[in-house]
Amino acid sequence: MEYKILGKELDAHKIKELTKTQRECLCDELRDKILDTVSKNGGHLASNLGTVELTVALMTVFDFPKDKIVFDVGHQAYSYKLLTGRFEKFDTLRQKGGISGFPRISESEYDFFDTGHSSTSISAALGMARARDLKGEDDCVIAVIGDGALTGGLAYEALNDLGHSKTKMIVILNDNEMSIDKNVGGMSKYLKRLRISSGYLSAKKSTEGFLNKIPLLGKPIIRLIMRIKSFFRYLVNKQPPSMFEDLGMIYYGPTDGHDLEGLIKDLTALKDLNAPVLFHICTKKGKGYKPAELDPSDYHGVGPFDREKGVSSSGSLSYTTAFAGAVTDFASQNKKVVAVTAAMAQGTGLENFSFKFANRFYDCGIAEEHAVTMAGGLAVSGYIPVVAIYSSFLQRAYDEIMHDVCFMNNHVVFAVDRAGFVGADGHTHNGMCDISYMFSMPNMKILAPRDYKDLRMSLDYAINRCDGPCSVRYPRGASVYEEKGPLYDSIDDIAKPHLVSDEGTEYAIVSVGAICDEVEKAVELLKQDGIKGMHLNLTYLRPIPWDEIKAATGTVKTIFTVEEGIFSGGFGENLASYAYEKGSDKKICPIAVKNQLIRAGSRADQLREGGIDSVSIAGRVKNELSS
Amino acid sequence: MEYKILGKELDAHKIKELTKTQRECLCDELRDKILDTVSKNGGHLASNLGTVELTVALMTVFDFPKDKIVFDVGHQAYSYKLLTGRFEKFDTLRQKGGISGFPRISESEYDFFDTGHSSTSISAALGMARARDLKGEDDCVIAVIGDGALTGGLAYEALNDLGHSKTKMIVILNDNEMSIDKNVGGMSKYLKRLRISSGYLSAKKSTEGFLNKIPLLGKPIIRLIMRIKSFFRYLVNKQPPSMFEDLGMIYYGPTDGHDLEGLIKDLTALKDLNAPVLFHICTKKGKGYKPAELDPSDYHGVGPFDREKGVSSSGSLSYTTAFAGAVTDFASQNKKVVAVTAAMAQGTGLENFSFKFANRFYDCGIAEEHAVTMAGGLAVSGYIPVVAIYSSFLQRAYDEIMHDVCFMNNHVVFAVDRAGFVGADGHTHNGMCDISYMFSMPNMKILAPRDYKDLRMSLDYAINRCDGPCSVRYPRGASVYEEKGPLYDSIDDIAKPHLVSDEGTEYAIVSVGAICDEVEKAVELLKQDGIKGMHLNLTYLRPIPWDEIKAATGTVKTIFTVEEGIFSGGFGENLASYAYEKGSDKKICPIAVKNQLIRAGSRADQLREGGIDSVSIAGRVKNELSS
Repeated sequence: MEYKILGKELDAHKIKELTKTQRECLCDELRDKILDTVSKNGGHLASNLGTVELTVALMTVFDFPKDKIVFDVGHQAYSYKLLTGRFEKFDTLRQKGGISGFPRISESEYDFFDTGHSSTSISAALGMARARDLKGEDDCVIAVIGDGALTGGLAYEALNDLGHSKTKMIVILNDNEMSIDKNVGGMSKYLKRLRISSGYLSAKKSTEGFLNKIPLLGKPIIRLIMRIKSFFRYLVNKQPPSMFEDLGMIYYGPTDGHDLEGLIKDLTALKDLNAPVLFHICTKKGKGYKPAELDPSDYHGVGPFDREKGVSSSGSLSYTTAFAGAVTDFASQNKKVVAVTAAMAQGTGLENFSFKFANRFYDCGIAEEHAVTMAGGLAVSGYIPVVAIYSSFLQRAYDEIMHDVCFMNNHVVFAVDRAGFVGADGHTHNGMCDISYMFSMPNMKILAPRDYKDLRMSLDYAINRCDGPCSVRYPRGASVYEEKGPLYDSIDDIAKPHLVSDEGTEYAIVSVGAICDEVEKAVELLKQDGIKGMHLNLTYLRPIPWDEIKAATGTVKTIFTVEEGIFSGGFGENLASYAYEKGSDKKICPIAVKNQLIRAGSRADQLREGGIDSVSIAGRVKNELSS
Repeated sequence: MEYKILGKELDAHKIKELTKTQRECLCDELRDKILDTVSKNGGHLASNLGTVELTVALMTVFDFPKDKIVFDVGHQAYSYKLLTGRFEKFDTLRQKGGISGFPRISESEYDFFDTGHSSTSISAALGMARARDLKGEDDCVIAVIGDGALTGGLAYEALNDLGHSKTKMIVILNDNEMSIDKNVGGMSKYLKRLRISSGYLSAKKSTEGFLNKIPLLGKPIIRLIMRIKSFFRYLVNKQPPSMFEDLGMIYYGPTDGHDLEGLIKDLTALKDLNAPVLFHICTKKGKGYKPAELDPSDYHGVGPFDREKGVSSSGSLSYTTAFAGAVTDFASQNKKVVAVTAAMAQGTGLENFSFKFANRFYDCGIAEEHAVTMAGGLAVSGYIPVVAIYSSFLQRAYDEIMHDVCFMNNHVVFAVDRAGFVGADGHTHNGMCDISYMFSMPNMKILAPRDYKDLRMSLDYAINRCDGPCSVRYPRGASVYEEKGPLYDSIDDIAKPHLVSDEGTEYAIVSVGAICDEVEKAVELLKQDGIKGMHLNLTYLRPIPWDEIKAATGTVKTIFTVEEGIFSGGFGENLASYAYEKGSDKKICPIAVKNQLIRAGSRADQLREGGIDSVSIAGRVKNELSS
């Protein structure tokens, strides 16, 4: 497709000057460009296709970067990036050194706050709005948040503060009835009632949308109209004030989020309100690309795919599918096993579990804290909740893991998916900290399986042999050990270090879980240099199996540990302290990640940048041995 | 006061058999016992005096421990403890080995979930209710939550899930218009409107309370009545469905939380509803003790006091008041300084700041996550937010500190109060983890001042010399160094180790911040045994000032570190790794806390149990040197 409007010449400020027809054309071109790029690079598709009209409307009405905007999570900001100076570099989306898949202050003066985790936008925008007030300025501050992100408690805390403080700010609720999966929760049902009761779905003849007809009024009059509108809606339509009005905001909507001209008129009016406004728009995830419209979950985050054929669900094995199969099997055997997720039934592999054991499956919404505390409640009542959450999101529940699970020694199993580097999503999504924060939790056992069968054994251990909290961490993607299977046969051996290779006594490396393959390569490199040692793989990190490691390493004096996680408080550091306290004369050298700000790139890139690729590991060993 | 009803003979089950007069008498006796005990031992007074009638009503209507209850935070559960087998031991409240100030599973079969941190009750109770459903049982599960705790996002996440899932459960909203301080937020204003619009404040003739008159109906009829009531209220009273109804719950109230017989009738009716119910009651904090009624904030958590005279505000110096003075001074000098708290203006010492700089002060409610992310928004806009939150509560914002502050290198100052042991509140309130989790945060500087002047210097550094995140941790209570002042004169020397004593070269101890006094005592003990070394105090923990420590310790080979925090990921462990990587031949021996489950006791008790009192430190040093 050749673009008539979209391109490097389309300066952000020029968008205001476009005609209605040109704007329509621009929307088509944005959709094409997004689809084209994502089908090549992978990325977030459905959510970005849903916000094309909204973005063009925003760019038409507001004056960025004087006005400010925060896109919640940020996986709906591709159009915004394309319209704010990043068209030319857009082909590098999510690649090393390229355009980030999320807003990044470091990338553009048009990005005002880095996002990636859910539900932060209203808080961040409120801080920016308060700063504006302190400066005595009058620019607009906007938060764009999906109905999914609105299930996060952080968003509610922010609405509570915003509604109270009456700060001028616009929250655009981008209601597409989805998180990544179909949305859950009372709020979701409530939004549906709002849509239905306003007559939004059936017609445009209701009181809603009437601002469209009176676009250019002075501020006080608009304010008055909003008040009257709310009152009118209440009296005539029997529609009560919305929950958002209850919290102190002006509520406007719901309205069609793909009606570009309508959005422009509405936003033009709302822009001048000197109060917190919640503007409720309804959009369709995947809009304009049929396969994504039909199955938005499958098109939430995708790898490269064929535009014509669409995404094919590969059904290939991964750590996630291995977990999914195992947890379903254990739930068949043990009726006490229940599963908990935070809006990620598909991502964590629990979908099948949810079909098979509907009454033992709980999707809590994007609400990691509640998921963990609720699991604590299940555990004190004799159930064994398996809480499946990605590593970087689970850290949101740091306090709940400690306070509501570990202090009471509750038997909760944490299935920590996406532990380690995740590739193109970059530093906000890398699961770097879980080993470290789990080591802070009293009573917590920590397992890091290497391969699928090891993962199954670990989960078996966590569910059937533990009586307190246990976390099982495993990385994104597929294991290279699919065929080989585990290094041990019996669950009784799970806590022992497992011998991978034993070719000398110059060193020993203890690899933690799935990083085993990288260490195998390092061992080869060292061998090529004539340096021969022993490689042990460890599944069981805590309680630290020191005696077993000591025995297995025999006369070897220098032990390296390699883990895909941060250094501070990690396994290596803890092992070093432990060995030291036990009076061991073995030298423990932890190798772990010190730079947490590793951006998008391939897994290989990220391992290298993190200093835990085979070359770095081998280099470190050589250095140490020669010193 | 001699008790006629209350006493060790008053078995929990007998409460049901009391007459109306006896119940009234019991309430008086409970208030007396609470007041008597708290005035001697200290504790949470105002909140406990507010829930006396509620507790007696609950014990009358429900069958604990078959039915289950979770008290949010748990500082309103004294009456419940007195009525469930803990009367005799109640004199040991909050003392070492005594009755905890919070519900504890380990203490009684009547306690079902440990609490301490805010806003967990609905999540925990929902987990318990779901477990009940899986078991096919029909007991009642109740969460009692204050309007303050309802500002926490976790509570909202739980309501969202509960309203959606339609699980049978009762949430009792104990609305006293207070957190610890006066409540803030849109929710608070909303609850006020509910109280006013229902006519609660003016009369009892409204539709509210009519359940009182029809106490014994079958379940379907009650359900129908609730529906009709809601409809009726809407049509006749022009009162729309409450926000709680919007989220999918049955809402009943508001009603007088001190009307014992009314509560009994309401609860009897609500008990049989097979749906999630929010029962809104209004109580008065401090009820029955005039000084506490007049000033509930001052009587929230108190030390021992004279019952006749009331609490005297001592105005004595503490780390908190030192922080308060310093931050106010720096805000006078620098208009960019703003202050943020999470419902703790008084506790964190920011009250005066809030009076003096009302427009630069933000109380976010019990919403640590929002407070941190909102501060991130202020920081990207050029302001310097000082976020003052207790150590054990700040860990709720682990992810927000990382994602919304540190990743962007935002200049946010964290004033981490109550860092270290806190005494009678016990393990849920001990601030053990902040050094460790702050070491996980990229770009974070960490300071731990020893005394008031050091605290002022640290804050000056954090505000005026930093350009990224910086945390300043300090303990609860008063400094023993009030007179002596800091060990260094100029802010330029803040990153150096400060010499406390230098009497030999057998060892060096680096004490972290305020634990200095305990180390001084240890040094004396060692001296008595003829072991002489050097004592350095460190304010500046990160970036680790290794070169300075190396230089200051000269020829000393063995360096101990002592910190009031957990071992894993703490300063000592990080220093040991760092020194090792730098190829130092000095031996670093971290001394830190390994047991996080240290219950209530004096500070001396807790230091001893944590292994960081003077005797333990001296013992550890001797051991190490002799090995």
